[in-house]
Amino acid sequence: MFESAQLPQKMDKKTFRKLEPELREALLSAQLEMVEKKPFSTIIVVDGLDGAGKGQAIARLYEWMDARHLTCNAYGDPMEEARLRPRLWRYWRDLPAKGETAVVFGSWYQKAMRDRIYDKIDDETFEHELAKIQRFEKMLAQENVLLLKFWFVLPREEQEHRLKKIDKKGAARHVLADWAALKNHEKASKVGEKIILETSKGHAPWFVIPSQDPEYRDATLAQTIAGSMRVKLDEGESSSIAAPPVVSAWKSQSAVDAVDLTAHLGKADYEKQLSKYQDRLSDISDTKAFSKKGLVLVFQGNDAAGKGGAIRRVIKPLDPRIYRVHSISAPTDEEKSRPYLWRFWRRLPRKGHVGIFDRSWYERVLVERVEGFAGHDDWQRAYNEINEFEQELTDCGYTVCKFWLAISADEQLRRFKAREEIAYKQHKITDDDWRNRLKWDQYAIAAGDMVDRTSTDFAPWTLVSSENKRHARIEVLKTICKRLEDAL
Amino acid sequence: MFESAQLPQKMDKKTFRKLEPELREALLSAQLEMVEKKPFSTIIVVDGLDGAGKGQAIARLYEWMDARHLTCNAYGDPMEEARLRPRLWRYWRDLPAKGETAVVFGSWYQKAMRDRIYDKIDDETFEHELAKIQRFEKMLAQENVLLLKFWFVLPREEQEHRLKKIDKKGAARHVLADWAALKNHEKASKVGEKIILETSKGHAPWFVIPSQDPEYRDATLAQTIAGSMRVKLDEGESSSIAAPPVVSAWKSQSAVDAVDLTAHLGKADYEKQLSKYQDRLSDISDTKAFSKKGLVLVFQGNDAAGKGGAIRRVIKPLDPRIYRVHSISAPTDEEKSRPYLWRFWRRLPRKGHVGIFDRSWYERVLVERVEGFAGHDDWQRAYNEINEFEQELTDCGYTVCKFWLAISADEQLRRFKAREEIAYKQHKITDDDWRNRLKWDQYAIAAGDMVDRTSTDFAPWTLVSSENKRHARIEVLKTICKRLEDAL
Repeated sequence: MFESAQLPQKMDKKTFRKLEPELREALLSAQLEMVEKKPFSTIIVVDGLDGAGKGQAIARLYEWMDARHLTCNAYGDPMEEARLRPRLWRYWRDLPAKGETAVVFGSWYQKAMRDRIYDKIDDETFEHELAKIQRFEKMLAQENVLLLKFWFVLPREEQEHRLKKIDKKGAARHVLADWAALKNHEKASKVGEKIILETSKGHAPWFVIPSQDPEYRDATLAQTIAGSMRVKLDEGESSSIAAPPVVSAWKSQSAVDAVDLTAHLGKADYEKQLSKYQDRLSDISDTKAFSKKGLVLVFQGNDAAGKGGAIRRVIKPLDPRIYRVHSISAPTDEEKSRPYLWRFWRRLPRKGHVGIFDRSWYERVLVERVEGFAGHDDWQRAYNEINEFEQELTDCGYTVCKFWLAISADEQLRRFKAREEIAYKQHKITDDDWRNRLKWDQYAIAAGDMVDRTSTDFAPWTLVSSENKRHARIEVLKTICKRLEDAL
Repeated sequence: MFESAQLPQKMDKKTFRKLEPELREALLSAQLEMVEKKPFSTIIVVDGLDGAGKGQAIARLYEWMDARHLTCNAYGDPMEEARLRPRLWRYWRDLPAKGETAVVFGSWYQKAMRDRIYDKIDDETFEHELAKIQRFEKMLAQENVLLLKFWFVLPREEQEHRLKKIDKKGAARHVLADWAALKNHEKASKVGEKIILETSKGHAPWFVIPSQDPEYRDATLAQTIAGSMRVKLDEGESSSIAAPPVVSAWKSQSAVDAVDLTAHLGKADYEKQLSKYQDRLSDISDTKAFSKKGLVLVFQGNDAAGKGGAIRRVIKPLDPRIYRVHSISAPTDEEKSRPYLWRFWRRLPRKGHVGIFDRSWYERVLVERVEGFAGHDDWQRAYNEINEFEQELTDCGYTVCKFWLAISADEQLRRFKAREEIAYKQHKITDDDWRNRLKWDQYAIAAGDMVDRTSTDFAPWTLVSSENKRHARIEVLKTICKRLEDAL
């Protein structure tokens, strides 16, 4: 998850200096309106990887906001007063009054998180703790607290680099280089993902902040806080995961934007690899082990990226009795009158079978989001529902492979024109395709968010350059073989 | 929990015959409006103890409603089609379309419930399963399904009686007397309580149906369904735990109503027992074991029931350094600007200490409910929040004793008058007391609901007749000693 947060998101100093007055003004005016009218209180949870600069970011908030109505509570190991009471006691004690803002540094997630990283508790106890936290946060939301949670992330190399710098400086005691944190980078990231996946709710959203670049980090933090306060002040409504930007937004790069489109595979190589992987897939799907499992394939991508062609290469080696291709377009009346995922539950393959989805449940967070067919709340909650759906499939023994086939806008244009020219391909291009193309940027944002929020441990997205179709087809087949071999 | 459901709730046949036409009309008209306008679908989950007459109750629904738009899905052991797919698959498959009503017999709770009763899974796995179910139900609610869940209960003796009758008749195969169910009556009831405690939400409420008397059972079922449909049709809003009755309601007896007020204790006995239990309490509170635990006492009751007097007898044997009495009245400004339970968290005793609450967090579901100081949603969600709060205290090692001191309306009147006459007692009687007295019935309903919904395994209510104060004081002391001795 949060693939795009791993990218080197940057904001140059000049842009930052230009944005700074606007951001400060937006943040301060929202805060002061809250202080004056006292409609609610705000709690800002700051968490994430060690060395990501959480302290610096909070220092900046102090500089930009009215510090008289901003309290930072840092929770380390509990002191005696707290040790003699239930664990949540100190967080209750410090709840801000209406109009006030509290930054929670070392939040109620810390203990469960650390215990899980160091394997002091197992997955079930961990989930139990998360469930308790969720009830606490739900209560806060129902008591009209604006609760914003920020997760600061950093790639491993950058974390190492920073720790070295701290070591060299012989820094002050409270920022001792935490080399243990680095050793556990992988584990901490996984546990963090799990936390975010389970506890990001409309009333208590997590925002993932890429923290390599301090300007990008602080601007994003301030932007999000100001935007969420503003929404809640104006609508009297709880903020949802994406508040509108308060100053003209800067563009972040998403994982989908970052796909390397230059990958290429020659014809001879392609033929060789194609038969190799098709043979492997045929063998695997014939095993007794596979007959007790199942396979679910999801194909999404830009229009004309070659989903159909890739699917044809996948089904070729399969026994027609064990697979079915589902081409997903507009829902039927029967489907419309039931919960959204019903369409897909009814198409689930049984064990030992393969369900192939040419477009899928992800349409809700792509076309339905962009075209407004689904309401804001509906597509927002779909991320969680989809993750749970795929978790269910995985728990039941299915392997779930999801492919995003990416092409450039230029390549799409070339393919659209070619389709119009070749008679037997004309049915593949419609006015809708041309209309969607006009919204290229919006679709790119939706695809980026989708990958960020639904690429999980158990059902990761595979982002494939399809600029060269041969390359894409082999990548798809290779991934399926590998995932199946791992699973069986 | 659900103490009042254990009482012999009855409706005589004459009353039933009088109500029947009204109930049928209310139920059918709500259903037909739903069928015609198709704003949502309804799912009725029917669960509870074996032998409670779930089948009969559903048969009556079929008789009263339009059977063309009512489907009953009975789920036993999954058949092959379902076994080869994720567990929820068959429930998804059968989701009703908008306008339709589905009765779910043998619901998604069955497997987890049985596994827990027969100890095939432990508590944590059980909670994990419940969490999954809750996500499913939340999704249904968000997809605009009216979800009503009924739990049919029966006292143990009655269950035994019915099983014997079935045995004698040599009944049909599908109602074979399930003697195993009887053996597990206690365990099944506990597991049921846990399910209801954790999964009764505003959007997916549980209704507990006392099922000894078929007329009472079926009328209550129909009343609840019709009322909930009507609310959702009229307001376009999800129904909450208590929909208004669609026909003039019959009076159910609550556990609070059922307290035996004749209990009496003579003066000599009283003196003897008083010093006995006070000595025991003094000893216990002096132990090293106690210094690592903690004690929280809650006193609620009718006005003038003698809370203060009981508390004085409890604190007498205690070291003044280890207890504090909190008299809870209107919240301060500071308290009002924070979440409701903050008032009580800040007063929590630390370990080895005793916190005594003369009135408590329960005021929210008593006076604040009756007088309208808290909104409907706020006091409704308080039941869950309070249970979780007390669970937190228990988990942390505190013993939580809660006392409801009950007196009759006549006795209250006598005491009020006495207070007005004796100079040094005049401060104890105010206009408020007289005003509250006018709402005696409403307070009785609120107290009954409170006991039903918050008397848990870990923090049970003790209902004490205080008609005779001596009796009440000894009961209180005895209970505290016993609970502490069990805990240490």
